[in-house]
Amino acid sequence: MQRIGSHTLRLDTPAYVQSSGAFAGKKEGEGPLKHYFDAVHEEGHLGQDSWEKAESKMQTEAAKTALEKAHVTPDQVQAVFAGDLLNQCISSSFGLRDLGIPYLGQYGACSTMAQSMGLASVFVSAGAADYALAITSSHFCTAERQYRFPLEYGGQRTPTAQWTATGVGAVLLGKYPSPVRVTEVTFGRMADLGVTDANNMGAAMAPAAAQTLTDYFTDTGSKPADFDLILTGDLGQVGSSLLRELLRKAGWDIEENHNDCGLMLYDRKAQDVHAGGSGCGCSAAVVSGYVLQKLQDGTLHDVLFAGTGALMSPTSSQQGESIPGIAHLVRLQSEAS
Amino acid sequence: MQRIGSHTLRLDTPAYVQSSGAFAGKKEGEGPLKHYFDAVHEEGHLGQDSWEKAESKMQTEAAKTALEKAHVTPDQVQAVFAGDLLNQCISSSFGLRDLGIPYLGQYGACSTMAQSMGLASVFVSAGAADYALAITSSHFCTAERQYRFPLEYGGQRTPTAQWTATGVGAVLLGKYPSPVRVTEVTFGRMADLGVTDANNMGAAMAPAAAQTLTDYFTDTGSKPADFDLILTGDLGQVGSSLLRELLRKAGWDIEENHNDCGLMLYDRKAQDVHAGGSGCGCSAAVVSGYVLQKLQDGTLHDVLFAGTGALMSPTSSQQGESIPGIAHLVRLQSEAS
Repeated sequence: MQRIGSHTLRLDTPAYVQSSGAFAGKKEGEGPLKHYFDAVHEEGHLGQDSWEKAESKMQTEAAKTALEKAHVTPDQVQAVFAGDLLNQCISSSFGLRDLGIPYLGQYGACSTMAQSMGLASVFVSAGAADYALAITSSHFCTAERQYRFPLEYGGQRTPTAQWTATGVGAVLLGKYPSPVRVTEVTFGRMADLGVTDANNMGAAMAPAAAQTLTDYFTDTGSKPADFDLILTGDLGQVGSSLLRELLRKAGWDIEENHNDCGLMLYDRKAQDVHAGGSGCGCSAAVVSGYVLQKLQDGTLHDVLFAGTGALMSPTSSQQGESIPGIAHLVRLQSEAS
Repeated sequence: MQRIGSHTLRLDTPAYVQSSGAFAGKKEGEGPLKHYFDAVHEEGHLGQDSWEKAESKMQTEAAKTALEKAHVTPDQVQAVFAGDLLNQCISSSFGLRDLGIPYLGQYGACSTMAQSMGLASVFVSAGAADYALAITSSHFCTAERQYRFPLEYGGQRTPTAQWTATGVGAVLLGKYPSPVRVTEVTFGRMADLGVTDANNMGAAMAPAAAQTLTDYFTDTGSKPADFDLILTGDLGQVGSSLLRELLRKAGWDIEENHNDCGLMLYDRKAQDVHAGGSGCGCSAAVVSGYVLQKLQDGTLHDVLFAGTGALMSPTSSQQGESIPGIAHLVRLQSEAS
């Protein structure tokens, strides 16, 4: 493993994507990416007696699906890095409890999938694991009632608000060569420019995304045009515009090849999601489903995935704190053609 | 890095303890370990306008103290692994926001310090970092009102309840040789025997501690008598008794050299803490203070630190779920004499 510049790790021994699993809720299953999920759950409870248990069940099925596709059993996996948005990360702990894989709970808000993929890749590259799983989920109904209002209240949403996705993604990284691999990782530093509006998290996260992408371009001597896709998740419309502007001022033009998981998951005109999707299941499902399939079929060859998170809580907002943002980056390359 | 047995990593290139910082609250500063903290805060608010901000301030000072002792600046540190018990881990994100170190939020409940030390050690050993920080905190007043009742309510505590410690510990791991080093790490699997009493978390965590210690002894071919100290954190009195019994039945006798951070931090007879201390700041402060000092002065030479966590939330308990336990282990060895 080489350290490049100040903040980037180059995995001379890459971590290969062995398989993945992606599941989504009804609304997400009606969006433009509907054909890229392993299954869509039409019913938000998944037969469970609470939404929290439904979200845990989605983690279980994503993990099992990824393992089954690769013909790998849980006892062959040395670590699962997983997280979600619920207090004490219960979707992950209860969803993965019965697998018997060493469990390392992660919290990076909506950056958790990138953080987990980065850590799993470092573990594989360093020989600490033959296989390591990265899994992240969110559920509209669990998040809405924990962070905002009871669903029955029917609160109005501001134009800058994002829609927490119901979705889960699992990626199995491993040492066995396959067409798609993680070759570089940049773990991000927090950035806080003083945004205090918890209904405008895109604006709070954009400076962190700009910082991590700048770190990456500087560390590696690369430029935005070197990549097929620079994918953030999840800045939504407001945060994406701000990111492009911040990077333009810093001398990097990403207009041509930037997209955001929160803008890809829904049809914003038809689906009433305001500024776009969010929630750590959003980028997890988009990457584990659509992006990995496009890398595997050779449509995409070189993708920077920068997951973005807002590291606040309802309590910190009530106490007047601003919102620290963070972004972690993994580079995904494909040999498929 | 070698994988030993099924679950243990042997760090052929060890991660050296460069320095540490440990701070405690008033009650903890009146206990048997009072001389081993960098400072004791007599006042729970630390001059802040909320307990949450006070806990964040403790994280800041622990990180800065560890860095200053080692004459290391934040830009020399490639990663900080940190966590706490608050929803969305805000003590860590707000406490470490201004340091500018790549931030990886961890959630392992009271096992978070062992999890963070294990990950920081793997990063250093693998060459992913020259320096990596592990930091964990808890605060009686923030935890009590989040998990249980408003402090003003004065709720009765059950005999099996543990007392959430006000404390923080930071350990700086690095590649530069020093007398104390992390040589082996075992990341744990969840264990859930169906305990549902959130006031008896020691019992919920003991099976996980037994499982991880059994994994470790089996993987390495070692036995309890090989170590000066087998340190759990934080099982308290109930969980410690259960752990010793579970291990005895499995053929491992740890009676002679087992202790628990939750039993060491307070004088249980004089300080009315019922089954002992808990909270992820408890083991963090005990290890970063007392244990590392005893390793550095040669009183201790070989310590297994198995941090234990209960991966539930108030919501999961209200929904009738049992409590998954977990334990992560790091082996600390000293060359001091």
